[in-house]
Amino acid sequence: MDQDIENLWQEVRELSLGTTAQIDRLPAPPTPLQFVRDYVSPNKPCIISAATKHWPAAALWPSTAHLLRALSSSPPVSLHLTPNGLADSLAPHPSLCFVSAHVAPTPFPQALAAIQSSDLHAGFVAYAQQQNDCFRSEYSALGDDVEAHVPWASEALGCMPEAVNLWIGNGSSETSFHKDHYENLYAVVTGEKHFLLLPPTDVHRMYIREYPAAQYKYSPDKGEFKLELEDPVRYVPWCSVNPYPSPETKEQAMAEFPLYFDGPKPFECTVKAGEILYLPSMWFHHVRQSPDSRGLTIAVNYWYDMRFDIKYAYFNFLQCIHLPIQKGLKSPPCASECCLKNKKGIIASAANGNATGCCDNC
Amino acid sequence: MDQDIENLWQEVRELSLGTTAQIDRLPAPPTPLQFVRDYVSPNKPCIISAATKHWPAAALWPSTAHLLRALSSSPPVSLHLTPNGLADSLAPHPSLCFVSAHVAPTPFPQALAAIQSSDLHAGFVAYAQQQNDCFRSEYSALGDDVEAHVPWASEALGCMPEAVNLWIGNGSSETSFHKDHYENLYAVVTGEKHFLLLPPTDVHRMYIREYPAAQYKYSPDKGEFKLELEDPVRYVPWCSVNPYPSPETKEQAMAEFPLYFDGPKPFECTVKAGEILYLPSMWFHHVRQSPDSRGLTIAVNYWYDMRFDIKYAYFNFLQCIHLPIQKGLKSPPCASECCLKNKKGIIASAANGNATGCCDNC
Repeated sequence: MDQDIENLWQEVRELSLGTTAQIDRLPAPPTPLQFVRDYVSPNKPCIISAATKHWPAAALWPSTAHLLRALSSSPPVSLHLTPNGLADSLAPHPSLCFVSAHVAPTPFPQALAAIQSSDLHAGFVAYAQQQNDCFRSEYSALGDDVEAHVPWASEALGCMPEAVNLWIGNGSSETSFHKDHYENLYAVVTGEKHFLLLPPTDVHRMYIREYPAAQYKYSPDKGEFKLELEDPVRYVPWCSVNPYPSPETKEQAMAEFPLYFDGPKPFECTVKAGEILYLPSMWFHHVRQSPDSRGLTIAVNYWYDMRFDIKYAYFNFLQCIHLPIQKGLKSPPCASECCLKNKKGIIASAANGNATGCCDNC
Repeated sequence: MDQDIENLWQEVRELSLGTTAQIDRLPAPPTPLQFVRDYVSPNKPCIISAATKHWPAAALWPSTAHLLRALSSSPPVSLHLTPNGLADSLAPHPSLCFVSAHVAPTPFPQALAAIQSSDLHAGFVAYAQQQNDCFRSEYSALGDDVEAHVPWASEALGCMPEAVNLWIGNGSSETSFHKDHYENLYAVVTGEKHFLLLPPTDVHRMYIREYPAAQYKYSPDKGEFKLELEDPVRYVPWCSVNPYPSPETKEQAMAEFPLYFDGPKPFECTVKAGEILYLPSMWFHHVRQSPDSRGLTIAVNYWYDMRFDIKYAYFNFLQCIHLPIQKGLKSPPCASECCLKNKKGIIASAANGNATGCCDNC
């Protein structure tokens, strides 16, 4: 079975996606028919180069004065605060949790200042975003600056976007590997976004496990973050792999997640200002960003409903296959407090069911 | 694993294909975009009702005089002869073989007479067909009677048909379950075709096994068929299930192929004159036909290249999963001559590897 699944990873690349880990680049938007036939139907990403040059935002959003003016009388925006730029990701507490940012409703001028001034050394990282159609609510004052939808995509998919989200961040924010149940048209307006992408066929390489949900609480007075487990406990299935481990943790990460690190290279691309990435539904993606000269990366993404068709049924089937012995993977490490204190173990997920228990080494 | 695969059969129906085993019926051709989005991409069949009424063939082919006139000076056509209307299907010899028809190049007038007069009582069944683009070669004289391609399908799929085939048969010919690596637009001009369809996710329900290839040889003088194994032996993977077993063999068939007979009902449809069936690539299909008042069923099918994309990779992965214990399936029966003679076993496929060996009961 292990070999059959590895063959699947390889075959989808050889037949359809390409073996170079490169994303197709189109000089201009495809026709709706080409888009469905060549990308949506085969569930294949592409980048459209000259996609949003006609948007007023292309000229306006590099101007901070314009943003401040447009949003001066808007209600507060959702500012996501973390100590390290890693929200919706895994962090030890002391065993690994799925961590969400502290969300502070903040007047836009202060939010923008926080994003521009914050970084790892500042003790906090700020990211203005909210994945709840925020562009059409919190940022409706910017509505005329971009197209309300991506016309060729809407025609292709036969519907209007279900949600449009705005993302204003800096170079310190990073989004951990995950997938969305949407067809995603991701438009970068200023700065750059760096994506790692894996097709849904590679689901086992993500080591999806259940982690207890936790949330950062930020106290502005002390300038400190506290991590609080949700009560009652709620488990979130999340990808375990950090593709960029630090030099100190690299060896351990490679031993723990060999299917990721020893398998085919992820697809890699940089989406620049004026470009749109078509990120197909169910693809795993990890995102980093480079800011413009002001220290900002601004993007708008359009989520369109996906079709739950034969591809989705196949994915669910594939996902429910448990690899009996994952190549080279050690047995799940103990996550109990005593093991952690004694540094005998590495931190395990709650999916092992023993996040609060003790192992034989304790 | 058995349960996971059964869930897959169910889920693809609940999410995409529908649970009633009915095929979508469109009153008129879809736009190319609708066709790709709603049918090709989700790999979902449909019937287009008023699809070919504008073809000259709609008025001309019900006239036998027209067909005879048009093809009077054409070279001989490929006439497929079998004792029972079952070509490209399984027959005992004495263990099950994959049997092809005797192909007799025959002047069209004689071929047509043979088709109209032949049936199970006549000792032979004739079927004018050849799946090698025969409409554009053997039947090129009829070329002006139909469209050279299906315009909305060609635009949708972004290519012209790879092959166009003509089928002139009667009510006695039947096509056993199989799949094709093509997107198929199947146009019935006179008579009716009755399809049973199963999606590719149901591959295990077809019990595909390797059978040695054999061919009918017909001697017109004696009016007799002889079945000859190919030499050297050649194995053909083929579906084992006959969905319409005789009353005498029904119980045995249901015991031998429980995944088919106990699983979800196959999709069932009748394609009438003037209609086109979109038969998606990789769907298993079984075909019977009803003749017009002359005793003829005439159809043209257009094979378009399929995309070997993520769906195909998923299919290959699914297919390579061997169900450890197929529900209710007895261990593969012995196919040796001595068991067959003693009627201890039912006929096994060569896939068991012991088509010529003996079992413990021998």
